[in-house]
Amino acid sequence: MKKILVFGAGRSATTLIRFLGDHTRKEQWQVTVADASGDLVQQKVDGYPNLDGVVANVTSAKERTALIKNHDFIISMLPWTLHALVAKDCLRLGKHLITASYVNADMRELAAKARKKGLFFMGELGLDPGLDHMSALRLIRQIKASGGHITSFHSYAGGLIAEESDTNPWHYKITWNPRNVILAGQGTAQYRDKGQLRLVPYHHLFGSAMPIAIDGKDRYEVYANRDSLKYISMYGLTGIPSIMRGTVRIRGFCKAWDALVKLGLTDSVTPLGVAESLTWKQLIAGLLPDNPSASVRSLCADYLGLSLDDVVMDQLAWLGLFSDQQIGDRGLAPADYLQNLLTDKWKLEPQDRDLVVMEHRIHFDKGGQSQEIRSSLHHEGSDQDKTAMADLVGLPLAHATRLFLNGQLNEVTLPVPFEPCIAEPILDALAGDGITFNETMSLSTDPPSFPSLSN
Amino acid sequence: MKKILVFGAGRSATTLIRFLGDHTRKEQWQVTVADASGDLVQQKVDGYPNLDGVVANVTSAKERTALIKNHDFIISMLPWTLHALVAKDCLRLGKHLITASYVNADMRELAAKARKKGLFFMGELGLDPGLDHMSALRLIRQIKASGGHITSFHSYAGGLIAEESDTNPWHYKITWNPRNVILAGQGTAQYRDKGQLRLVPYHHLFGSAMPIAIDGKDRYEVYANRDSLKYISMYGLTGIPSIMRGTVRIRGFCKAWDALVKLGLTDSVTPLGVAESLTWKQLIAGLLPDNPSASVRSLCADYLGLSLDDVVMDQLAWLGLFSDQQIGDRGLAPADYLQNLLTDKWKLEPQDRDLVVMEHRIHFDKGGQSQEIRSSLHHEGSDQDKTAMADLVGLPLAHATRLFLNGQLNEVTLPVPFEPCIAEPILDALAGDGITFNETMSLSTDPPSFPSLSN
Repeated sequence: MKKILVFGAGRSATTLIRFLGDHTRKEQWQVTVADASGDLVQQKVDGYPNLDGVVANVTSAKERTALIKNHDFIISMLPWTLHALVAKDCLRLGKHLITASYVNADMRELAAKARKKGLFFMGELGLDPGLDHMSALRLIRQIKASGGHITSFHSYAGGLIAEESDTNPWHYKITWNPRNVILAGQGTAQYRDKGQLRLVPYHHLFGSAMPIAIDGKDRYEVYANRDSLKYISMYGLTGIPSIMRGTVRIRGFCKAWDALVKLGLTDSVTPLGVAESLTWKQLIAGLLPDNPSASVRSLCADYLGLSLDDVVMDQLAWLGLFSDQQIGDRGLAPADYLQNLLTDKWKLEPQDRDLVVMEHRIHFDKGGQSQEIRSSLHHEGSDQDKTAMADLVGLPLAHATRLFLNGQLNEVTLPVPFEPCIAEPILDALAGDGITFNETMSLSTDPPSFPSLSN
Repeated sequence: MKKILVFGAGRSATTLIRFLGDHTRKEQWQVTVADASGDLVQQKVDGYPNLDGVVANVTSAKERTALIKNHDFIISMLPWTLHALVAKDCLRLGKHLITASYVNADMRELAAKARKKGLFFMGELGLDPGLDHMSALRLIRQIKASGGHITSFHSYAGGLIAEESDTNPWHYKITWNPRNVILAGQGTAQYRDKGQLRLVPYHHLFGSAMPIAIDGKDRYEVYANRDSLKYISMYGLTGIPSIMRGTVRIRGFCKAWDALVKLGLTDSVTPLGVAESLTWKQLIAGLLPDNPSASVRSLCADYLGLSLDDVVMDQLAWLGLFSDQQIGDRGLAPADYLQNLLTDKWKLEPQDRDLVVMEHRIHFDKGGQSQEIRSSLHHEGSDQDKTAMADLVGLPLAHATRLFLNGQLNEVTLPVPFEPCIAEPILDALAGDGITFNETMSLSTDPPSFPSLSN
């Protein structure tokens, strides 16, 4: 009887927990789900009498250690800042640990120590990071094995809303951590295009988004996703002329988000010295040229260089930026006020179905011929709880758990799922769940080239 | 015999240490200067056989405690992040402590505890913060005492370069912490203008600078300095229609700095995945639209909306942004590369004289008449070592030390120099050093109004 502990029962953990609940008998598992919120735990284990739910505060060393001590295999679905706490205990107490978060320098060091003790420590076992690596590296390996020479690697991904649930003018609802939605893209994006270094500062990022069709559906747009350059060495693509990872949105989002950035509403560092009774209209007026004779909406349109009937102005108005709604808190930063607003406006309704899309586009030369392969994933959720996001974050973790506990991951050496000995069986298992990539091959067209900054 | 310890012997400590050295005999002081750099200590105590110089690592609890234990009055000139270490020891060991840095929540709490033990703990005893508070509050008190009702408070300050040493096209050299120069203005500036909230996001801040004359010299410009709103309660100005603190530069600086912001060179959070052999021209090309047939300089001018012969283009070229100079390091953020470049290009030469300017402009109604008072400080340094910055940071600290040790600050209750019982004797002592404000009164003109954002 293997004892599995899941730390964190938030939205992304739904599918993972259901998978574990469905497999306890067959796999002879004993599974505990722990979260600080009793409601969340109850909601997740409901209908699974074979799952133990416990309320626990992970920041309490006593509660955390007591739980870890009593299990063999730990899955941390906690915010990434809490993984190190859990990892240190797992290392000390000799327990295996997996997460869906990036393996940072601290976690890499802990994983190396764990390996020496014969423990399985692995991160990046979710969607992005996770499935992105596994699916891209499978393609790269196949192309290289067949003698192809890769000249361009583009990879796009986005957590979106299914067409039938796309009911607001932003074409977006929040299906994952809202903080990450608000702060997306801050810093400088970096990629390589036809041998040239490309750097995109934050204040130009959303304005540089370009329209794109994925899996035949011509309704998306994509912007450069942070640091693509580090994937050159990570994916074994030294010398590649073009590499870019991009974030996908439904078309129309980026121009409006660019307006929020230009207005200054995504600053997360400056607590504003304003009263909670300030209205959104007054806050926006504060950010615009002072002209008491014009309406805030018309000043805003002028400031953004848009006509009053531009769809972006409707998107901003729909959020209530020109309304008398009060901001409702004191001393928050602009990004905090925006987050509070969007969490409400972009809430997933009970029957809403989310959507995850991912597409890799790889150009390569083979036998004197330029070719392109496109590999696309389109996966929709069922409702507010059974989301595509929860499926794609949870199932790689679930399969890694099952494979490891069945002794099928003994050859793994890295703390990330880059090796075929783990990526292939997980991808195969996902295919069994109906999660497959649609592949098309063609003679090469020009590689997808990104528009240059235009501001 | 009072024993004084100065922690930190950097550029801003020069005047303070000379003052202490000049007064040891008369005041019966024993003074120790401690710094991690033996060179800095030697340079500062050189010529003052009555000053003890010691090399000490302040982050070593043992070295720090040993030094503090052996003194009565501690002056911390360390970076502000290290003050708390020193303050905790001073509290435990029963020693007095002053600094020139902002009193944050941690230091405020330590100061309250220190007060209960009968200790003198005070921060904001330098130039800005320090002299700005003392001189502004003196004016505010005088106006209120004479029955005036204040309707507008503007206060401008800048650490600059004297006209005769202004030898580069930026009209700027580094006379204080270069990191603060690079990151100046990040976040959202906030002030109040004629009753209206004004918020200026970073990417518009330098473009919104306006020309200004100070003390009759029409060669400056000023931009909004972070959070002016908090000064409303700090300075007892509840309900004031207009309040703004501004940062002064010599005219021509802000438009060029705005170009650096627009290019994305002030991002301090994104390590770039580029080689140390990358040239500045290549780095700038990466930030611009891709057009291999145009020169980087001309692409840059187009991108910034400037003509090729705009003075800003000369300023950028003078920094070497279009040159084949290598960036010289791996994995730094754009702001780090920029800081390395500017620290070199904007170095103070041995005979260079720096300049500090400050001006308060207060409008008030009195006896049915609107009036304005302007109070201006213009103070130049002597050379690279004896800077105006070191004078104006060091002398308030020096006088506070002298006054306290002579028993003249017994009525002080706050951890900042806001009370007349400390501000007045310090301002009087500074006047004795030749540091005076030039005051002019006039019937009111319109209050200085800031241009609205124009981008």
